[in-house]
Amino acid sequence: MAGELSGGDLSRLRQLNALAVIKALQGGPSLTLTEVAKHTGLSRASTEDVVRELLGKGWLAEAGATAGGVGRPARRYRFRADAGRVLGIDIGGHKIRAVVADLDGNVEHSAGVPVTPEMGRLDRLAAVDRAAAECLAAAGMTGADVWASGVGTTGLVDGSGRVLLSEALPEWTGVDLAAHVRRLAPAPVLVENDSKLAALAECWRGVARYAKDMVFLLAGLRTGAGLVIDGKLHRGFANASGEIGALPVLGWLRAQEHLTAASGEASDVFAAARAGDKAANAAVRRYVKDLALGASALVLALDPQMVVVGGGFSRSADVLIEPLRRELDRWCIRTPEVRMSALGDEAVVLGAVRLALDDVEDRVLDGRTPLVSQL
Amino acid sequence: MAGELSGGDLSRLRQLNALAVIKALQGGPSLTLTEVAKHTGLSRASTEDVVRELLGKGWLAEAGATAGGVGRPARRYRFRADAGRVLGIDIGGHKIRAVVADLDGNVEHSAGVPVTPEMGRLDRLAAVDRAAAECLAAAGMTGADVWASGVGTTGLVDGSGRVLLSEALPEWTGVDLAAHVRRLAPAPVLVENDSKLAALAECWRGVARYAKDMVFLLAGLRTGAGLVIDGKLHRGFANASGEIGALPVLGWLRAQEHLTAASGEASDVFAAARAGDKAANAAVRRYVKDLALGASALVLALDPQMVVVGGGFSRSADVLIEPLRRELDRWCIRTPEVRMSALGDEAVVLGAVRLALDDVEDRVLDGRTPLVSQL
Repeated sequence: MAGELSGGDLSRLRQLNALAVIKALQGGPSLTLTEVAKHTGLSRASTEDVVRELLGKGWLAEAGATAGGVGRPARRYRFRADAGRVLGIDIGGHKIRAVVADLDGNVEHSAGVPVTPEMGRLDRLAAVDRAAAECLAAAGMTGADVWASGVGTTGLVDGSGRVLLSEALPEWTGVDLAAHVRRLAPAPVLVENDSKLAALAECWRGVARYAKDMVFLLAGLRTGAGLVIDGKLHRGFANASGEIGALPVLGWLRAQEHLTAASGEASDVFAAARAGDKAANAAVRRYVKDLALGASALVLALDPQMVVVGGGFSRSADVLIEPLRRELDRWCIRTPEVRMSALGDEAVVLGAVRLALDDVEDRVLDGRTPLVSQL
Repeated sequence: MAGELSGGDLSRLRQLNALAVIKALQGGPSLTLTEVAKHTGLSRASTEDVVRELLGKGWLAEAGATAGGVGRPARRYRFRADAGRVLGIDIGGHKIRAVVADLDGNVEHSAGVPVTPEMGRLDRLAAVDRAAAECLAAAGMTGADVWASGVGTTGLVDGSGRVLLSEALPEWTGVDLAAHVRRLAPAPVLVENDSKLAALAECWRGVARYAKDMVFLLAGLRTGAGLVIDGKLHRGFANASGEIGALPVLGWLRAQEHLTAASGEASDVFAAARAGDKAANAAVRRYVKDLALGASALVLALDPQMVVVGGGFSRSADVLIEPLRRELDRWCIRTPEVRMSALGDEAVVLGAVRLALDDVEDRVLDGRTPLVSQL
């Protein structure tokens, strides 16, 4: 048999076997060689061979041996989530967030730098640099230690990581974010719209983990949407999906103005509504009416299993969620389950981490990142 | 090796080998044994074995032998698309259509029975019976010869083939179409909304063959939509996708009224507009404005590669398509390619045929329809 396989075939087979071993251990408890062989379907000899090499390359580590039983306790192995690190960055109107996460997606370090919606391109990019540098320093890393970076931003993003159109931030249309972040960390940089990343995070670590079809609503000083269809982030032909807000009759352009019209903070309006203030309650009602109009268009179009509401306003779930359900009931043929995000401000940066991890995993899958020695 | 495989494993393997041979021949030219072996990757001996059995079961037939070359000409084999038949039915407001198609989806016989939108449930079902009986008789078949039936209807359809909700046809909500058609032909019956079936047909045999993401607009006396996402018909959690027309601000509830308000036929209005009549042109403009509003919501939500316009009004492409493009340009961030259906009135019934063929193929794939003798 082996005589019929080329060196390339054998390398590919070794890579797939190594990946199977890693998948058996990633995110789970440590296993013995016997257990790894059982999980992967590999022979005992192949399992030993692959585990030995993954130990040498630093992908696996020995865990404490099992006590009990007769004879010498069997050695146990675990995936080293700390074998590599990814960088996640969320570029918002009011804050830049940067996090360092391990290969299981656990956030180990984070940094935040306040910005303003009015800030120009150079100042905002300088704040990105500061947040990233601070976060890498806290992790004791340099940019060269990063395996991949994920970046979330408002606006439309093209496939090369450039902002195609941003109406929320000044001088932001045209920024080549991938090139900018690559100067901070030379590994691959993936850039995506913030609502899409928040949707991704909700399906990974949030309330939509079991939903195949989901509409994510970004409810905050801007209103946006991200769609997950058949378990996958739906980007669209030119990455411009979820932009229902562009249609004036669907209310999203004016929605948040109901909460900020009285020159106050939206959070004050929510607090006053909570305390029973009539004017505040009327303002929240008008906001929810507009939010629900665009949301109903998405629900009627897609008939999703779940609607998840995230963004800054999702902290006011208590005054938002019931009115939103009622408005959806008014327009939709079938109102899906409506859930508030539990990830809050973390959703976009977590989605950026997921995007970076997807890229790391893609490179392992197609052999660009060799797990074991190639022949 | 064989000693390790159970009888069930071997049956499954024989089924997969037989399916590989059929896939190599279906919809293509006849092939020699050597060519079949090359296409499928099976050994010459296995290929001979499978082909012999598929000939015996009537799935394959001998085609004319190849002339030329030296020695005895090699025998050629072809898929027998006429080995089985499916029934497709389109239940509309004005007409019931029934067709019989072979396993390649070629429509061999069809029958049409006129109905009216006002007709009640029993009369409409009687018309379905007449159309199906006429079509089967023309094909020299009885219901027992049908391998699967696909049925298209207006309204929302549940997973069991019952009409959940129909506003267009009286007494139509609650009709169990699957049970009704099963009385005509006892094979499995698949029922689906007409806009969804038309979308399916456009991706199979129509102008959207190369589009992965597509929005189909049913433009006629009713306005509806069907979505194809990532190459698959998007049904939604409760099969209620594409129902954007339920949202009044998106204009689809009133759209067609602009064309029929003057108590005339829509086709007369299109003809008058074509001839330069000002009032008719204004009516078409108002219709297109409303059609484009809902269509823009779908385009902004999904960012599809293509919009296909079908339904009765698609015959008036010359006066519709340019205004529609202009209106989409007005609202959409990226206007996709807009195409008129070339399938016309055939789209729904062709989609019904595709639905029935999918069921036939699913049953072959999972072994419910044995291609060869089981062990």
